[in-house]
Amino acid sequence: MTNTAPPGGGTAPRENPLPEPLTIGVDVGGTRIKAGLVAGDGSLRATRVRDSPGDSAEAVAQAVVDVVGDLRSAAGDTEVAGVGVAAAGFVDHAEGVVLFAPHLPWREEPLRDRLSALLDLPVGVDNDANAAAWAEHRFGAGRGQDEMVMITLGTGLGGAHLAGGRLQRGRHGLAGEYGHMVVVPDGRDCPCGRRGCWEQYASGTALRRAGRAALATGGASAEALLGACGGMASRLQGEHVTRAALAGDLLSVGLLAETGRWLGLGLANLAAALDPACVVVGGGVIEGGELVLGPAREALTAGVPGAGRWPVPEVRSAALGNSAGLIGAADLVRTSGRPTPAGGPTPP
Amino acid sequence: MTNTAPPGGGTAPRENPLPEPLTIGVDVGGTRIKAGLVAGDGSLRATRVRDSPGDSAEAVAQAVVDVVGDLRSAAGDTEVAGVGVAAAGFVDHAEGVVLFAPHLPWREEPLRDRLSALLDLPVGVDNDANAAAWAEHRFGAGRGQDEMVMITLGTGLGGAHLAGGRLQRGRHGLAGEYGHMVVVPDGRDCPCGRRGCWEQYASGTALRRAGRAALATGGASAEALLGACGGMASRLQGEHVTRAALAGDLLSVGLLAETGRWLGLGLANLAAALDPACVVVGGGVIEGGELVLGPAREALTAGVPGAGRWPVPEVRSAALGNSAGLIGAADLVRTSGRPTPAGGPTPP
Repeated sequence: MTNTAPPGGGTAPRENPLPEPLTIGVDVGGTRIKAGLVAGDGSLRATRVRDSPGDSAEAVAQAVVDVVGDLRSAAGDTEVAGVGVAAAGFVDHAEGVVLFAPHLPWREEPLRDRLSALLDLPVGVDNDANAAAWAEHRFGAGRGQDEMVMITLGTGLGGAHLAGGRLQRGRHGLAGEYGHMVVVPDGRDCPCGRRGCWEQYASGTALRRAGRAALATGGASAEALLGACGGMASRLQGEHVTRAALAGDLLSVGLLAETGRWLGLGLANLAAALDPACVVVGGGVIEGGELVLGPAREALTAGVPGAGRWPVPEVRSAALGNSAGLIGAADLVRTSGRPTPAGGPTPP
Repeated sequence: MTNTAPPGGGTAPRENPLPEPLTIGVDVGGTRIKAGLVAGDGSLRATRVRDSPGDSAEAVAQAVVDVVGDLRSAAGDTEVAGVGVAAAGFVDHAEGVVLFAPHLPWREEPLRDRLSALLDLPVGVDNDANAAAWAEHRFGAGRGQDEMVMITLGTGLGGAHLAGGRLQRGRHGLAGEYGHMVVVPDGRDCPCGRRGCWEQYASGTALRRAGRAALATGGASAEALLGACGGMASRLQGEHVTRAALAGDLLSVGLLAETGRWLGLGLANLAAALDPACVVVGGGVIEGGELVLGPAREALTAGVPGAGRWPVPEVRSAALGNSAGLIGAADLVRTSGRPTPAGGPTPP
């Protein structure tokens, strides 16, 4: 449970000018709560993981309080300066309110105030994709990139945008919900109530759906993929497709490429809208590495406007894995999202 | 040619704390060059219009130099502090280079440096939609709106975004090319080389195409529209449809509503990505007023994610008409795009 290595290996700064005070980051997802004690260089001093209680907002808050208390004990005599929460939902950052979370019992949930009343520490609440983007920008694949888009390909497709080295949150802190941009009018149903949302074509869920559809068609070409999920198509998950593809299964390679092309098509739209220098892609689906990112780059390059004159943004794989959300949340409460916080590492 | 009234009527500030020095704004479009002598409150002290020379970059530059000289003479003894150019193309703002312009002889054109060498004045170059957005934010429909998207529905669909009261230009100054976001995969051909771009569904060109298609179908319902273009379908322009709609022609009302719905669909995507408080829509197509904006608001409201919990941005009609680009370019060179420039009007 405890990890003293800096995240992202060589991408994290080796020097640590002002590691303390520590802050605590808590990433509250629909399935798990991941929490960590984070130093000023982004390194994790201790981590905790537990299941998310699904029954009530009170139970989720209590679980966060429990894990924070546990990590404060782990900090011993070292000061803990605040708690940053990364929440999987539509977050009004300024008010600290989760407007809506598809996989958690949060509706207009005043999470910051609820936690502040239970904890004797400053609390900040941010969208999980914003927190992950901030972590990658500060300590991971986006270091030195002030004009950056982050895409998280997990169950859904989350996103965030930095301009001038600052998170762009929009009027209510809701910016970056790229997964719910419609890419196919009247396309596939989305749990958000609309049809044709980007995340229905580029996400772990989309990959799983495509994999199950391929198994339903059957034939000899599906044998490796069927083996990957123990012979039961209804158990197939996106990660089975990724694993089979990495082992050389051509059907699965094709499914990852299709996901990558949809990723690239949407990235071309974001390039036209935002003109980022760099796109960092994280989330479980990029375990497939270049099998996803290669086709994504091709579709992005073909998809930007301007007849070959548009500068195509670089596409990078995220470096911090599934700790990015909690590291970013902890650093956001420490730095308030300033581009070069006092005592923080100097960008390269 | 000369207009001493402040732009946008009552929306422009009546007080004028520091009207001087004046700056010159030049809006270089594919058809016309519009230029004006602009005071610190956004009011126009003199204007000039001439045709755009289509033959060479040198000829365009000379035309700008001529019109600037003319306006400097009009300024008399009053100091002119700089020239701002709004260019219809992909503009690298930091370098002052127009990378590409579909309707002008500009390819990697170093417009700022070329003009600086010919003029004894500071020169700034910006995208025309950025300039128009800045003008609407400072003096028009977007006053007091720091989180604002501007959409210009003309021949194409241009756009710009302000966050924290600043233009968001992206890494190369290219941000805001919303018209080339793909809304229909493998959809209608776009001159940019791609298919299904938003501006092929929401723009004056799209409205013209829809109108001509309706005339080709013919029938009694097309009579009013056919009359509006003098009985020749091949002469039909978007403004004929707008005029017929405003006169009550139901076929034309339907065509404007279709354009509005496509506008709203794309605005919902931008709302998910950017979370603006306000969208200002300008360009010739909004002469149709609520016949376009009403259906756009409906589609936007139905299209935002979050099952009714997402705050829908307000949609407003632009206030400065086709002077917005030159007023914004002049003010950008005066203020360098600072949110509350010294001597400028105080936002309400």
